[in-house]
Amino acid sequence: MAKKEKSGEKLRELGNDLVKQINKGKGPVINLPVRALSNVSFDKKSRTLVLGNKMAQRIFFNVAHAKKFLQTMEVASVSKNLLKEGKHASLRDVFYMIKRTIPGTKVNLVDDQSESDSCIEDLELITEHSREKLNMTANKMGSVVGNVTILDRGDTIQWNKMGSGGYSIPSTVEEIEFKKVNAKYVLYMEKAAVWERLNEDRFWEKNKCIIISSQGQTTRGIRRLLQRLYEEFRLPIYVLADWDIYGAYIYSVIKYGSIALAHMSEHMAIPTVKYLGITYDDIEKYGLQKHLIKMKDTDKDRIKQVASYEWFKDNKDWQRQFEMMKKLDAKAEIQALSARGISFITEKYLPEKIKNKEFIE
Amino acid sequence: MAKKEKSGEKLRELGNDLVKQINKGKGPVINLPVRALSNVSFDKKSRTLVLGNKMAQRIFFNVAHAKKFLQTMEVASVSKNLLKEGKHASLRDVFYMIKRTIPGTKVNLVDDQSESDSCIEDLELITEHSREKLNMTANKMGSVVGNVTILDRGDTIQWNKMGSGGYSIPSTVEEIEFKKVNAKYVLYMEKAAVWERLNEDRFWEKNKCIIISSQGQTTRGIRRLLQRLYEEFRLPIYVLADWDIYGAYIYSVIKYGSIALAHMSEHMAIPTVKYLGITYDDIEKYGLQKHLIKMKDTDKDRIKQVASYEWFKDNKDWQRQFEMMKKLDAKAEIQALSARGISFITEKYLPEKIKNKEFIE
Repeated sequence: MAKKEKSGEKLRELGNDLVKQINKGKGPVINLPVRALSNVSFDKKSRTLVLGNKMAQRIFFNVAHAKKFLQTMEVASVSKNLLKEGKHASLRDVFYMIKRTIPGTKVNLVDDQSESDSCIEDLELITEHSREKLNMTANKMGSVVGNVTILDRGDTIQWNKMGSGGYSIPSTVEEIEFKKVNAKYVLYMEKAAVWERLNEDRFWEKNKCIIISSQGQTTRGIRRLLQRLYEEFRLPIYVLADWDIYGAYIYSVIKYGSIALAHMSEHMAIPTVKYLGITYDDIEKYGLQKHLIKMKDTDKDRIKQVASYEWFKDNKDWQRQFEMMKKLDAKAEIQALSARGISFITEKYLPEKIKNKEFIE
Repeated sequence: MAKKEKSGEKLRELGNDLVKQINKGKGPVINLPVRALSNVSFDKKSRTLVLGNKMAQRIFFNVAHAKKFLQTMEVASVSKNLLKEGKHASLRDVFYMIKRTIPGTKVNLVDDQSESDSCIEDLELITEHSREKLNMTANKMGSVVGNVTILDRGDTIQWNKMGSGGYSIPSTVEEIEFKKVNAKYVLYMEKAAVWERLNEDRFWEKNKCIIISSQGQTTRGIRRLLQRLYEEFRLPIYVLADWDIYGAYIYSVIKYGSIALAHMSEHMAIPTVKYLGITYDDIEKYGLQKHLIKMKDTDKDRIKQVASYEWFKDNKDWQRQFEMMKKLDAKAEIQALSARGISFITEKYLPEKIKNKEFIE
């Protein structure tokens, strides 16, 4: 609960500061860092995406700022109440909770969720607390199993007694308490079907690891879970994704942070994460050439873009992967390994790669 | 395991039948029902979508059939091996497992997953077993909590001790054994964020129910879980969805079955399921008019289409909902209820609606 008080305190500070300004006869102003690509850079020391020093002012008595100022205050007020009640709201809930016509006008406080979302991200910067700690959450997704025992809302949950389904990862993992973690590493995969394969083969038990999946995008809940397992237990994190530009970017976001959430890198990025596969070398070694899929034009454009990102552009190993994607005009899915047999992935591919430390960083 | 042997036996029957035909000097032929809209109808007695009596032949010595014949055999062979090994494969895995160039030719056995998927659906018809019982699965999705204890792959799992996350629903629930089910009804909702709200408020405990969510589409795993809870424990199933045409269709698929899977209605449809909300009447009663969202043109086209389906076209209650959607040119999300307070849904909306039996059927 200490953490909650902290984010609540920050909100009170914000409110007190504004009241002070008003009492001094000043028009209220909020100072906050600029949250835009122009203020995002790749920090070579921490090896994460970080926000720069450019500051902005949100001025109540400025026609261009007044609405956003109000929205920020409303979102802060919703957060304060949520913390007080000990409840969480989804981003969509928050949108509906602040949506109304400003009294005496025909202007809606918010017309679109993107407006409240943006204010929530600003509030992360202002309070220096993640939106999860402000009790605002995005959609949940993903499953986990492994030899781990957690305490979650008073329930003791054993991740090694989860049958075929697994523990369903909540949208916020901040309040989960780890009671026992008996694992050598964490394997994160972008596909639920691959996770089901690994779980059915009890890969996590045989290889003393934790397996985590999403379906497609890595939610913030999953990213924070990965980060906590690394920060608190020093578990290496390995990423298993398709050999395509989207797989590379999934890895990149987990490792370096994302442009949109550069201000959250400290709480989300894991610079030590390693990319396990699929790689071009896997395709050669395991004879998967016949199982390549032709790229689309949009894939090619995206390769050009991602390959030029600061954190990729001097990375020879990744540039080679991007080059080979372009040269072969192809991508390869994790499940292409099934061509070699349904349990090839669990019995040969993964153990061999991990034993030989065949990672890309 | 009895169930597995049954689907395995059906596969053996198929193989034996073909061998017999060949031994008689005949070209092998598979008989199977036509699986197309022209052979799908709404059965007024069972109140589900069913397949008609039109039969088709798949003839090996027919240039137009030969490839599909081979594909069907390959898929049957993969299924037989999976059943023998006691393993499950995703639809994507199956595609890669049968993908190869036919020896002596330049023709690929399959070029696209839709081809193997279609053969798997045929195999469901030929064997009269769902693909889950043929050990072929689609993606997993969704979470469940409630006062239920299950036995799953040797693990005893209590759905009432699942903290904030819940039990992650597997892609196939056929082998789950229910040890204890202490609930008055099942509430299924299309949104994970709403499920998190209900779980945080311990709605399932206070109201003695089971809560299940997906995110968007209802997977086959979830549909079968709902059906098993109804068939084996006679639990009423209530659906909570957005007031839009997609919400209505989500409900329709759970209740009546789907056009593409009409042959599976017996295993999937639940004719007694009831639609709880959101309804036009909720919008009026709870003053949500300001929280409506404008429809898109595609929404309007879809309303026209769905409203004319046989199972909807004589249903006055639903036609009224469709009319009101068109009249207001609007839709409403479940989360619009949050405008009335974060726990309005759990403290007032749901208990009141269920108590007053305000359903649409």
